[in-house]
Amino acid sequence: METIDLRSDTITRPTPAMRKAMAEAEVGDDVFKEDPTVNRLEAMAAQRMGKPAALLVASGTMGNLVAQLAHCGRGDETLLGDQSHVFFYEQGSASALGGIHPRTLANNPDGTIALEKIEAAIRPDDVHFPSSRLVILENTHNRCQGTPLSLDYTAAVGDLARRHGLKLHIDGARIFNAAVALGMNTDQLVAAADSVTFCLSKGLAAPVGSIVCGNEAFIARARRVRKSLGGGMRQAGIIAAAGLVALSEMVDRLAEDHANARTLALGLSQIPGLRIDPDAVTTNIVYVEVEKKGLSAPALAADLQAEGVRVLPTAPHQIRAVLHYHITRAQVDRALAIFSRLMSN
Amino acid sequence: METIDLRSDTITRPTPAMRKAMAEAEVGDDVFKEDPTVNRLEAMAAQRMGKPAALLVASGTMGNLVAQLAHCGRGDETLLGDQSHVFFYEQGSASALGGIHPRTLANNPDGTIALEKIEAAIRPDDVHFPSSRLVILENTHNRCQGTPLSLDYTAAVGDLARRHGLKLHIDGARIFNAAVALGMNTDQLVAAADSVTFCLSKGLAAPVGSIVCGNEAFIARARRVRKSLGGGMRQAGIIAAAGLVALSEMVDRLAEDHANARTLALGLSQIPGLRIDPDAVTTNIVYVEVEKKGLSAPALAADLQAEGVRVLPTAPHQIRAVLHYHITRAQVDRALAIFSRLMSN
Amino acid sequence: METIDLRSDTITRPTPAMRKAMAEAEVGDDVFKEDPTVNRLEAMAAQRMGKPAALLVASGTMGNLVAQLAHCGRGDETLLGDQSHVFFYEQGSASALGGIHPRTLANNPDGTIALEKIEAAIRPDDVHFPSSRLVILENTHNRCQGTPLSLDYTAAVGDLARRHGLKLHIDGARIFNAAVALGMNTDQLVAAADSVTFCLSKGLAAPVGSIVCGNEAFIARARRVRKSLGGGMRQAGIIAAAGLVALSEMVDRLAEDHANARTLALGLSQIPGLRIDPDAVTTNIVYVEVEKKGLSAPALAADLQAEGVRVLPTAPHQIRAVLHYHITRAQVDRALAIFSRLMSN
Amino acid sequence: METIDLRSDTITRPTPAMRKAMAEAEVGDDVFKEDPTVNRLEAMAAQRMGKPAALLVASGTMGNLVAQLAHCGRGDETLLGDQSHVFFYEQGSASALGGIHPRTLANNPDGTIALEKIEAAIRPDDVHFPSSRLVILENTHNRCQGTPLSLDYTAAVGDLARRHGLKLHIDGARIFNAAVALGMNTDQLVAAADSVTFCLSKGLAAPVGSIVCGNEAFIARARRVRKSLGGGMRQAGIIAAAGLVALSEMVDRLAEDHANARTLALGLSQIPGLRIDPDAVTTNIVYVEVEKKGLSAPALAADLQAEGVRVLPTAPHQIRAVLHYHITRAQVDRALAIFSRLMSN
Repeated sequence: METIDLRSDTITRPTPAMRKAMAEAEVGDDVFKEDPTVNRLEAMAAQRMGKPAALLVASGTMGNLVAQLAHCGRGDETLLGDQSHVFFYEQGSASALGGIHPRTLANNPDGTIALEKIEAAIRPDDVHFPSSRLVILENTHNRCQGTPLSLDYTAAVGDLARRHGLKLHIDGARIFNAAVALGMNTDQLVAAADSVTFCLSKGLAAPVGSIVCGNEAFIARARRVRKSLGGGMRQAGIIAAAGLVALSEMVDRLAEDHANARTLALGLSQIPGLRIDPDAVTTNIVYVEVEKKGLSAPALAADLQAEGVRVLPTAPHQIRAVLHYHITRAQVDRALAIFSRLMSN
Repeated sequence: METIDLRSDTITRPTPAMRKAMAEAEVGDDVFKEDPTVNRLEAMAAQRMGKPAALLVASGTMGNLVAQLAHCGRGDETLLGDQSHVFFYEQGSASALGGIHPRTLANNPDGTIALEKIEAAIRPDDVHFPSSRLVILENTHNRCQGTPLSLDYTAAVGDLARRHGLKLHIDGARIFNAAVALGMNTDQLVAAADSVTFCLSKGLAAPVGSIVCGNEAFIARARRVRKSLGGGMRQAGIIAAAGLVALSEMVDRLAEDHANARTLALGLSQIPGLRIDPDAVTTNIVYVEVEKKGLSAPALAADLQAEGVRVLPTAPHQIRAVLHYHITRAQVDRALAIFSRLMSN
Repeated sequence: METIDLRSDTITRPTPAMRKAMAEAEVGDDVFKEDPTVNRLEAMAAQRMGKPAALLVASGTMGNLVAQLAHCGRGDETLLGDQSHVFFYEQGSASALGGIHPRTLANNPDGTIALEKIEAAIRPDDVHFPSSRLVILENTHNRCQGTPLSLDYTAAVGDLARRHGLKLHIDGARIFNAAVALGMNTDQLVAAADSVTFCLSKGLAAPVGSIVCGNEAFIARARRVRKSLGGGMRQAGIIAAAGLVALSEMVDRLAEDHANARTLALGLSQIPGLRIDPDAVTTNIVYVEVEKKGLSAPALAADLQAEGVRVLPTAPHQIRAVLHYHITRAQVDRALAIFSRLMSN
Repeated sequence: METIDLRSDTITRPTPAMRKAMAEAEVGDDVFKEDPTVNRLEAMAAQRMGKPAALLVASGTMGNLVAQLAHCGRGDETLLGDQSHVFFYEQGSASALGGIHPRTLANNPDGTIALEKIEAAIRPDDVHFPSSRLVILENTHNRCQGTPLSLDYTAAVGDLARRHGLKLHIDGARIFNAAVALGMNTDQLVAAADSVTFCLSKGLAAPVGSIVCGNEAFIARARRVRKSLGGGMRQAGIIAAAGLVALSEMVDRLAEDHANARTLALGLSQIPGLRIDPDAVTTNIVYVEVEKKGLSAPALAADLQAEGVRVLPTAPHQIRAVLHYHITRAQVDRALAIFSRLMSN
């Protein structure tokens, strides 16, 4: 039986072009900064984000951790969404390993945080308080329907941060989905940020790797932090080679994932017992509420898996489906048919 | 000009009985556990909290930090109120120094956190998540009108924590205010907790010192943690002597502070331009909203100070007044008269 | 039976003048910097150390921890003696709580560290290395016979540190013993240091309290760190009052302890089965090697305790005796007689 | 001009077989444990080390950090050599990020630490001390001539550790060099250890990756730690594919590197102005003392580089050369000729 795996875009496997690039990559020792393929990827990434410098890291989680450790000292405070990936899914490692204190603020359904909430949360200088240091936004926002943050909103948060002497980091794991959805370039979208992380895996389908971008001094600190985490890799050009293909060839096709997500959302919205606002689906992530009496999200996920469709239960009555490179329009239709049949039982 | 200092009950100065006790205290080296006065105080404190063991620490902040470090390892997560003193006023030190990840949940106006919010925030076992370890309640709740938490609520949180394998710590800096307001003993009020901190300074008027209580194994770990923080004090019997007086002589009179707070609140509620619900004032802390057009809390506080009344601005349009040992009913009346005069200008 | 307690000078109890001062101390809330007695003590301490500012802390361990945390960020490296109190007896808390990496260098028997060893251990700028930040000296050096470091040595280390952009901290828990032994003022002795900790308890006999000194910016950071540790105490003037007496009245008499230590050392050097170089005893600390066949240090300590003499076993065949305020010349003679009797059995 | 790069075996580039394996690797999402190639590599690695379980990590530094964090809590103490890679070259990250306190003990020239020094350094249970938790050995020992630790020595340290309730970790970055030099299997060599790290890069020539091995519970903790560091990689099977080739095809040929190292050492020992004991060279690492008057190690390294030979200055008068997969016997001879010529100038 064919499996239609909608659990995450992290499951994407490298393309033939990536496999070829990896097999032929020119490599060197990147700890000595001598890997030409890594150097090319970092230059291309920096340029795509409009930042002076970039650093290859092993994962998006490492990218966000490196950025936080490079911006914040022991006891500094970050301001971030209570639904953010950094707070929710990264094991609290900025606190655990870096002594950084997170102050969560309520995410709106579209992934924004109210500007006045951010401003009110900035701490005055007082021995009772940690030092507010860093605002973190997430674009697109995973747990908020994969919604992209607008340029205006991001710029406003950047202004606010600068006015108070804080830095702005963007967790742009899926920043290319945001750029495609909004019809703009990534460098515009992150112009207000002091640093940004994005992933070569996920929608862009590279097997391994994420990138942190920022200015030269920040990246120099980030490089030290990466080494301290054990993230300094030797002939990382193998990984970087796939990343170059990801950046060059895989961005534009994200529009297909968005179209498929929209199709899926529209189809699901027609199925009794499921609740979803298809207009809220603008990139590749689809959250559906399971409202059929007696049916839990894990139970539905198990039923779907028995039929070859894999989704992720993300709450007792919520499942998530993510569209990506390996999912065709025809598979979306088949998945919808299976959903429909199971829900009508 | 007489000063009526309502900023905090932390400003209380030792009573003559405390000064006499300190001057005559029998002392030894408490790092060797040889200070008889410390040993007596710890025994009395443990008994008052109904716990097997107790430890003298330098402050309430140290008590809460010691408890968190003794309960939680690197990367563990605490669940606590977003208005809690631990999260708000303790410099984020559990993260900064201990690698503990705080997960804040909305405090209700009465200082409680909804049980279902606590339960929903407990993390499953997954590499993406920190390990939920400790629930922290605050009784009375400073930033929530000094409201005491009821026995029923505390017991319900204790049950919930135990059911999920978590510990419960109570920041009982003002637990005696809660006990007096609720008309019950402290040991009942903290029976559901694995550990509790309370302060000998604040309402009880001792110059220095707080206590952490819990079981023997917890206090043994706490003793190690205290030493690591530099909180091991030598002839601490001097401090403990005042603490013994505080526990023996100063608890019952807290009722006077509560009555004075109530009088103050009722009086303030009559003054146009101030907003306060006097029924919400049940212990010694009074928060007032400043609603007069063009008048900020800092400006009102400055005007009051010029007339000899000191209060603490706690938000752009909010001030706090705390009743304590050095404030008489007559001073409350004088303060009300000054408030009234200033607000009518 | 009279006890002659030579375990440590930390056991000293406050003098009658201290008790009187504590009973009468004018106090305020030191977290608000409003305790006049604390302010007077900090001013006097700063002046005695020739530094711009000072901060009262709960213990010598807290003083050293505060200084390290105020000088060093996460991942910085300290250079310190492998016999130093900071490395040996402070639970590794600079690492545990502050993420500071200690690099130990061999202490010479006189408590110094060879200048060339310090210089060779300073790290170049390289991602493989932590950042060398702070040199720590100890004066007098507890585990090295209580030996005072000379002005010349201290100045040379200060020069070396400055030349390489490092800071110098002196753990001067017993710096007054050093000053008395060397016949100079403490401000001279610590002139080369960026910060210094000294203790009011120990030889100076105050019940509780140590002081950290440095420049204004350092002390501002130290004050924040102290609060984060829970070391902010409210009416700390009680403690400070004893500290003022300690500084004013108790320094000069340390010469008596040194004389008694010398007497003890000379006497012990005459007893077969004990080995000690009396010329190495220049302050108040006496280490003796137990060389009698079949006799361990703990066994000898137990035998002594049975006769009313208490000492500390510090190694399988080494005991330590410390002279202090409560030990008279007559008691030294009695202790020697007991030693002599026990060793001849 | 041909370059003979002897700086490190970390510069090795993947073999054609590795490139083919990477291009064709079957992959999945390793964060979901669904990458079949990673699973195969971890199984093979565990078997080669005789441990129940294994985990792929991004580098040797990450492997050692993961192991330390999985064995040690906040404030625990490790015992390790003062010349060890973990202490010397890993940025102090176990302290910086994990709050672990290192206690260094002198390495003998052969990389061992005297058993009695280890035993004497284990801390008793006392609030002044951190808790001794983990002994770390390094095999082969990089900074000690690449010397392998014998089975007897390792077993004796393992016994000692177990007797005192400590764990033993082996940094076996080059454990296969040790096994080849000693003529035994790696599982025997690390049988006494609770955990071991080894590298697929370095001598085995894989582009990226190291492995941590231990029992199931340890590896479960290690997996959590790896995720917290951002070391969870998605389609890591690409990397693992090269690792499988490294383990299968590249171990036995290490003997060639050892023979070449020996040839180089013998040759260098004949050159006036250089000092080296060729008998101390038993694996692939060669340290030479530069004793010619007026010639520093960096200057000699620069002269060599101008002639196409690259080495690493590791001290003011010491250089290091490492033999590896890309260095032939003929190149060793050419390098010797260049050394000889330069030294005779």
